[in-house]
Amino acid sequence: MSKFENVTITKEANIYYDGKVTSRTVEFLDGSIKSLGIMLPGEYTFNTADKEIMEIMSGDVEVKLPGEEWRTLVTPEIFTVPANSSFEIKIKSVTDYCCSYIK
Amino acid sequence: MSKFENVTITKEANIYYDGKVTSRTVEFLDGSIKSLGIMLPGEYTFNTADKEIMEIMSGDVEVKLPGEEWRTLVTPEIFTVPANSSFEIKIKSVTDYCCSYIK
Repeated sequence: MSKFENVTITKEANIYYDGKVTSRTVEFLDGSIKSLGIMLPGEYTFNTADKEIMEIMSGDVEVKLPGEEWRTLVTPEIFTVPANSSFEIKIKSVTDYCCSYIK
Repeated sequence: MSKFENVTITKEANIYYDGKVTSRTVEFLDGSIKSLGIMLPGEYTFNTADKEIMEIMSGDVEVKLPGEEWRTLVTPEIFTVPANSSFEIKIKSVTDYCCSYIK
């Protein structure tokens, strides 16, 4: 199990899609932000503000990035989403992720 | 939003009941441990090793503690579970919780 040390975590969860997607916000000493989250089976669309580096730690996932076709991930796998865009994701089994927001 | 500062968080989630209950482990400088978690609607039984102080931050919840009757919480509400016991919980809406483990 990997750990993030010397971080600040927001106690309350971020809750989306009736709780089928939830996350907690982690802030690092350099001011950078990640969210650690869980997605349950379903299809979701997310809009980005910052560029996002999505690390899917476990789960069965298909993703459609802007201008690309649907593709199946082989987790653990990382994909990157441009700022001010959106992506679609199909979750087939419980999915554990870490999203890094890049300013 | 309250925050926990100077903590260590385990990156990977703890996943129970097919992902309907998930949490992340947070370790404090004094060595104490909390988990921040989400429970989705359902009925669950949990066994305790340490004494647990369960803070239900939000959600519609009924709980049955050892030797007690079922009761409905008025969240946010805290209940305490003895070490080496178990409790039953009915979740009616997405529930955000913080569990403190007391050695």
